[in-house]
Amino acid sequence: MSSTVTFANHQVRLASRPIGASTRDNWTFTTEPVQPPSAGGVLVKTLALSLDPAMRGWMNDAKSYIPPVGIGEVMRAGGIGKVVASSNPQFAVGDLVSAALGVQEYLSVGQDEIKRASMFKIDPRLGSIGQWLNVLGMPGMTGYFGLLDIGQPRPGDTVVVSGAAGAVGQTVGQLARIKGCRVVGIAGGRAKCDWVVNELGFDACIDYKAGNVKAGLKEHCPKGVDIYFDNVGGEILDDVLARLARGARIVICGAISQYNNTTPVQGPKNYLSLLVNRARMQGMVVFDYADRFPVAVAELAGYLKDGRMKSREDVLWGLDTFPEALTKLFTGENFGKLVLQIADA
Amino acid sequence: MSSTVTFANHQVRLASRPIGASTRDNWTFTTEPVQPPSAGGVLVKTLALSLDPAMRGWMNDAKSYIPPVGIGEVMRAGGIGKVVASSNPQFAVGDLVSAALGVQEYLSVGQDEIKRASMFKIDPRLGSIGQWLNVLGMPGMTGYFGLLDIGQPRPGDTVVVSGAAGAVGQTVGQLARIKGCRVVGIAGGRAKCDWVVNELGFDACIDYKAGNVKAGLKEHCPKGVDIYFDNVGGEILDDVLARLARGARIVICGAISQYNNTTPVQGPKNYLSLLVNRARMQGMVVFDYADRFPVAVAELAGYLKDGRMKSREDVLWGLDTFPEALTKLFTGENFGKLVLQIADA
Repeated sequence: MSSTVTFANHQVRLASRPIGASTRDNWTFTTEPVQPPSAGGVLVKTLALSLDPAMRGWMNDAKSYIPPVGIGEVMRAGGIGKVVASSNPQFAVGDLVSAALGVQEYLSVGQDEIKRASMFKIDPRLGSIGQWLNVLGMPGMTGYFGLLDIGQPRPGDTVVVSGAAGAVGQTVGQLARIKGCRVVGIAGGRAKCDWVVNELGFDACIDYKAGNVKAGLKEHCPKGVDIYFDNVGGEILDDVLARLARGARIVICGAISQYNNTTPVQGPKNYLSLLVNRARMQGMVVFDYADRFPVAVAELAGYLKDGRMKSREDVLWGLDTFPEALTKLFTGENFGKLVLQIADA
Repeated sequence: MSSTVTFANHQVRLASRPIGASTRDNWTFTTEPVQPPSAGGVLVKTLALSLDPAMRGWMNDAKSYIPPVGIGEVMRAGGIGKVVASSNPQFAVGDLVSAALGVQEYLSVGQDEIKRASMFKIDPRLGSIGQWLNVLGMPGMTGYFGLLDIGQPRPGDTVVVSGAAGAVGQTVGQLARIKGCRVVGIAGGRAKCDWVVNELGFDACIDYKAGNVKAGLKEHCPKGVDIYFDNVGGEILDDVLARLARGARIVICGAISQYNNTTPVQGPKNYLSLLVNRARMQGMVVFDYADRFPVAVAELAGYLKDGRMKSREDVLWGLDTFPEALTKLFTGENFGKLVLQIADA
């Protein structure tokens, strides 16, 4: 295989570690010839990539649940691709797969790298490519296991979720409704709030950009908050802590308000509410539940088919838009799961 | 019964709410005639009172797990007393009881107030009066249920406890050792550290007054911290958060470093370690476990008898010393469970 234009692999690599918000300067664009698959390997063409707040953390040189992306390495990203060449009997040309493709047009993996790339075939009958990156993908898995395993909802519970219109938030809120809970979202702007209430069926939504989250929680959670699914941290976490119900559970999924900080993370000054209310706050990482993803996908795909669950993706096009697309997550400019489409399916 | 000198009841009442540390000015000393017990009631003479960090919180006009002490009310305190008059068949003159006696020399309760005062007979064969306020009392119950129910220790776990030489800390550390854990205490000063290691059998103790808690944790918890029993909050909580093991449990029992704050409570800025390490932080209030106190007392009294558990009380004398005695808890001047003895047994 020669490095013709058709088989050039365009890539986005980490050039430097950002201080605060990332910028275009933190990235470098490279082109390499596509490597054909080795014996037992697979060559995948990227169709769409998932853009996630967690990416900001992977850019830091800090100990975390996953090693940082090295300087000069292709940026880590999960995505959906199509098998374009294969010498592995488990993957046929034309199969759609989910994998850690990276921010690039092609991924060529050897047989022993397939597992490391978390590659598996997806069933396009269960959902669109966008949905496979959203409700049926990592955000959906995060919402499903975070809510059910850590939050442990009971019918009648009041569930609050921040980043309500985001990828994780929409799954959490709709799933909590299906499980018989009252659901109050927190999102930025009237449009997002209207959408989660009118389209997704949340009981209420607090617009944090319009101001008083504390007053909104008081109004919409008169009996206190039984479960808080936290995607944002910061002031909002403190506001919810101040309204916990007895025995509340807080799922710490992320802290998007803090990821671009150049100062230390803001600790929740109301954490002693955990004591007063015999409540708990627990962190989760979605990869721990990989063995059970098929169970969650089966359940969630059913809700998508029967209409009890909806999804919304915010799709941008092309590798070159990656740097600016990523920063939209932190300003709240995206509306729904942020997807970077690389090629037509 | 006339209000002779013998039956004068000296009391300490809350005169004003402190800002920051409490002082003698926050208290008023009153004398009342002792009320004889009504039909079905009991008159108890206070022998010894438990002085606890939680008392500082009860002085604030703030919503908590228990209503604040009202201005002009006798200060709330648990203690051990002797029944000196009774018209209730369940309590005989001479019985020793544990009850919410208040900071006063006598408590007279009607039949319907006995339960509210949490009054129950204690068995002096199981422990001394000091031990009934310590390992067999509220601090012991707090340590027992906090460690076992919330912390859920497994043999081989590394357990860290702050306030290690205090009433709760000594129970937690010794009980964790009995359950097969490695135990690292955090205490203030060489004497306390030596005591918990040499007398109580802790594996190590970090002297926070000597400096580097972080380095001490690194040295003594090479595999990370599986359980942290937190009595202090503040910087030490952050230091431990930075060393959690995967799946760690933090028991939020109190935050003695923060109770005298005139500024907002210091939130744990390292709380996202809960996410990275899939860890949880959970609050507890000992009163929730009242139904199971007899089970805990039976177990702990056994350890006291067979020598696997030791206890240390720091005994001060007389109602008049109450204001200064209380403040010792916050400077760490007490060594062991702080007891205010009011009368000879």
